[in-house]
Amino acid sequence: LDYQHVQVPFEITLWIMLASLAKIGFHLYNKLPSVVPESCLLIFVGLIMGGIIYGLNDRSPPVMDSDIFFLYLLPPIVLDAGYFMPSRPFFENIGTILLYAVVGTIWNVFGIGFSLYGICQVKSFRLQDVSLLHNLLFGSLIAAVDPVAVLAVFEEIHVNEKLHILVFGESLLNDAVTVVLYKLFRSFCEMPTIKSMDVFAGIGKFFVVGLGGVLVGLSFGFTAAFTTRFTKDIRVIEPLFVFLYSYLSYLTAEMFHLSGIVAIISCAMGMKRYVEANISLKSHTTVKYFMKMWSSVSDTLIFIFLGVSTIGENHEWNWPYICFTVIFCLVWRALGVLVLTFFVNRFHVNTITSKDQFIIAYGGLRGAICFSLVFLLPDFHRKKLFIAATTVVILFTVFVQGMTIRPLVDLLAVKRKRESAPTVGEQIHIRFLDHLLAGIEDISGHWGQYYWKDKLEYFNSKYLQKILLREYDQPKSSIVLLYEKLERKHAMELAQAGQLGHGLAHPSFLCSAFLCSSSDRTVITDQKLEDTPNPDVLDNMQEILARNLYRIRRTGPAYNRHTLPGDSEILILRHKSL
Amino acid sequence: LDYQHVQVPFEITLWIMLASLAKIGFHLYNKLPSVVPESCLLIFVGLIMGGIIYGLNDRSPPVMDSDIFFLYLLPPIVLDAGYFMPSRPFFENIGTILLYAVVGTIWNVFGIGFSLYGICQVKSFRLQDVSLLHNLLFGSLIAAVDPVAVLAVFEEIHVNEKLHILVFGESLLNDAVTVVLYKLFRSFCEMPTIKSMDVFAGIGKFFVVGLGGVLVGLSFGFTAAFTTRFTKDIRVIEPLFVFLYSYLSYLTAEMFHLSGIVAIISCAMGMKRYVEANISLKSHTTVKYFMKMWSSVSDTLIFIFLGVSTIGENHEWNWPYICFTVIFCLVWRALGVLVLTFFVNRFHVNTITSKDQFIIAYGGLRGAICFSLVFLLPDFHRKKLFIAATTVVILFTVFVQGMTIRPLVDLLAVKRKRESAPTVGEQIHIRFLDHLLAGIEDISGHWGQYYWKDKLEYFNSKYLQKILLREYDQPKSSIVLLYEKLERKHAMELAQAGQLGHGLAHPSFLCSAFLCSSSDRTVITDQKLEDTPNPDVLDNMQEILARNLYRIRRTGPAYNRHTLPGDSEILILRHKSL
Repeated sequence: LDYQHVQVPFEITLWIMLASLAKIGFHLYNKLPSVVPESCLLIFVGLIMGGIIYGLNDRSPPVMDSDIFFLYLLPPIVLDAGYFMPSRPFFENIGTILLYAVVGTIWNVFGIGFSLYGICQVKSFRLQDVSLLHNLLFGSLIAAVDPVAVLAVFEEIHVNEKLHILVFGESLLNDAVTVVLYKLFRSFCEMPTIKSMDVFAGIGKFFVVGLGGVLVGLSFGFTAAFTTRFTKDIRVIEPLFVFLYSYLSYLTAEMFHLSGIVAIISCAMGMKRYVEANISLKSHTTVKYFMKMWSSVSDTLIFIFLGVSTIGENHEWNWPYICFTVIFCLVWRALGVLVLTFFVNRFHVNTITSKDQFIIAYGGLRGAICFSLVFLLPDFHRKKLFIAATTVVILFTVFVQGMTIRPLVDLLAVKRKRESAPTVGEQIHIRFLDHLLAGIEDISGHWGQYYWKDKLEYFNSKYLQKILLREYDQPKSSIVLLYEKLERKHAMELAQAGQLGHGLAHPSFLCSAFLCSSSDRTVITDQKLEDTPNPDVLDNMQEILARNLYRIRRTGPAYNRHTLPGDSEILILRHKSL
Repeated sequence: LDYQHVQVPFEITLWIMLASLAKIGFHLYNKLPSVVPESCLLIFVGLIMGGIIYGLNDRSPPVMDSDIFFLYLLPPIVLDAGYFMPSRPFFENIGTILLYAVVGTIWNVFGIGFSLYGICQVKSFRLQDVSLLHNLLFGSLIAAVDPVAVLAVFEEIHVNEKLHILVFGESLLNDAVTVVLYKLFRSFCEMPTIKSMDVFAGIGKFFVVGLGGVLVGLSFGFTAAFTTRFTKDIRVIEPLFVFLYSYLSYLTAEMFHLSGIVAIISCAMGMKRYVEANISLKSHTTVKYFMKMWSSVSDTLIFIFLGVSTIGENHEWNWPYICFTVIFCLVWRALGVLVLTFFVNRFHVNTITSKDQFIIAYGGLRGAICFSLVFLLPDFHRKKLFIAATTVVILFTVFVQGMTIRPLVDLLAVKRKRESAPTVGEQIHIRFLDHLLAGIEDISGHWGQYYWKDKLEYFNSKYLQKILLREYDQPKSSIVLLYEKLERKHAMELAQAGQLGHGLAHPSFLCSAFLCSSSDRTVITDQKLEDTPNPDVLDNMQEILARNLYRIRRTGPAYNRHTLPGDSEILILRHKSL
């Protein structure tokens, strides 16, 4: 037995396997996932696993490594989020999202930090050695809403599109703020004195970190699109480029201390449209499917590890501090949302209702990002207290808020996502209104969102598409494209319903005469189609035949022999002949 | 700049990126890949890269790590090979393949080992310190034909199916023999004395390593099939199980010192049929596509690394030894094929022609497996000589044999693969003959391949399918399945050719009237189809509209304004209003 040799990949594979099997397990009982969010169940599995490891080894189970989390588990989820981001609601609400993400997060950080410092002054709590800077540092890591946790819960409750994008967009974009504040306070903690210069440099950093991330992401995204122009002859590695370039954008941003999350989202949103036009349909299916699969596995692993890491002796249970942390997290977020929304609503026709505000405040779940950040803290004597407080906040938000948010959404009758997709007619009218509004903005001289959107589209069609798309020289009209798509869909439906006029599709199908005779449909189209034997399709067909024709022998003669089962009779014959 | 932090994933991603870009590069010039095999080009790229690294750093570039090769690069390629293995020719020729793989490899090992030992006795070559055991150890690693190299070359020359499976099957299955002999001689080298017991134990090990690998692989394969029974509600992680279980089978086999290659092939071949029946069509596309992509990337990386690792100062250039190694590799393989084929042809009606024998002997390419094994050798004073000899043998076989085999196949007019897939009619007749032959074998009491195949099919349909397939209780007849497939394909062709009778597929398509009016086809079917709005399809459609309807505005009004370009006019207006 040589376990050492294969240990690393073996254990990784086993963890992924455990996560996937846990997922299958939940879905076997259909009622469970409809009551409890999957994230709670996964943390629960993690807690059990951690308990078992702790019980067997009598020492704390391994904690989720922050490097593994930030380098391997987080990127797939963010990539998936960015790639499938509904761009229209996102850009329509980008101002509100940024306000929540930047001002809201700063508000929360300082609010939580200062009020916890106040708590530390109470003598009976024995917390006087926790300095203001340490409290602010803790505030900076606990204030950030976690995209993974938000996505896991909000995907299941189907609130309306705007509400969803407000919470989810905030959780993604606050990464830039969190990164800056966290690093700022951490370096302040280690500095002997803080000059006012450092504070101003910190403020300047916001823009560098955020905009730098966007820049890195977009440049990798466009390079990816440009690369897929040349993959026509080797379709098989097309999906790879989508993953490679977006991952590189994340790593590059991290390398330069920019926001990796912002970078990978910009990369995904930037490349999507061009890559999809360049790659083949099958590659596209693979990209979509694999992205979903990967993010789903990462997500599962994160929650299981969260559970596992909770068990152990890393905690200092100072309950006053912990309880006040939970309370302050709730209170400051609620206040922040109320104040910010007040300003947002003054500038918007389409206001955020008070029900929506409640869900935004209540949906501020904390998750694995806080958890990884708290473990990355430099060692100081109260680190275990911070770890305990973070763990409790995460468990509280994921379990209590995560499990009650669905009933609350039902109770408050929050506007839900429309079940049916908008019809093509609606879609055309929306587009028409867009163009109308862009024109009105042109004339009135108001440089609003429609104006910028229009400019962007112009730039895109005039320059970007020509560089990034392979077949730009022969573009098809939108109507022709849509028509082809409808035709394909219609054909599939007809084929499924068995109402297709049947001609001899391929001369090699000798048995089609037999097939036709067994059905009572009329042959409408007589002309032969172009003779294009697709090897893949043929392979599949032959496999079906090869697999199933076997039954002919087994079912055929067996009924003809009356008493003896066929095999034993043959066996007797054989034994005689031997 | 924090490079340390992201170094590992960053460098891995960059290497994969380089490999993929190199692949794209070759295919931009269509003529290049048709003359030189891709593997040669990749090694060439690797040599250049290695040269650059060597020139810049003034020390040997990093050598491909044997662990990385065996744990991460090899499994995807073997999995792909096993999953897409044409099972019919493989099992029809399994006897011959095993003979080549087991007896042929042993023949080569001892032949090369003993004759190199003879060369070492020549005083003027200054090799007298290389013992017989070391020569045999070297023989055991240099004798094995490499599946990666064989696949890379034989995929491009399209020889007939039987010839292909003989060479390729041998290269896969000789792994068991290589593993045993290599480990045996390595442990002999470290033992003070060798007892005859040890030799017998070594022979017994063949069966343990080979059959153990098959057993491990099949058990994981069946578990994988069983698991996919329960993934109906979470289609998105279905493809994962195919990869996880096969990788686990490989690692488990390696852990127990069994043949990992044999295990993963058995796993893939065992699960394929059941998994494909259980998982959805999209999952299946993803599995196939991703497997191809992954193996293609691994393959590319291996050849590039081979090139990079060649550069440097790891070599001891004793040319007599190196040249005789190349000669003996060629001679012993040719002799082995001749002798073994003589025996094979005596027992088969369908004999192996002398042309085929030449290609089998000539197609014995060496590759990355030898290379990794030679680096795994324990340190002794002549290791650099063995490394040099291995490198030369690999480069010789890949470059000289790999580049000349295609012209030779043309020159000898070796029977090629039939271009067209067999028709369904042929297929039915082949199946019919199978059943007939199984019946004849039954009656004559000859337990041949048809008898065993029949027994296996019976066992499969009676027990395995019931356990492993999700929807076994309502199986569809083969004819119905084939019919549905043909219908689908036919429908797609009709839609592409624009000959589909057009009904209102979905009530929401308000514009379909407009679409219809623009075409002159008649509406044949009047009945409405079931109203099943597939969100995915709708999404796509709306995206097409959203993306393309934009043009309406750009192309519409622009022509109406006669002299001034629209934008500048608006700009003047706007400037006035500001």
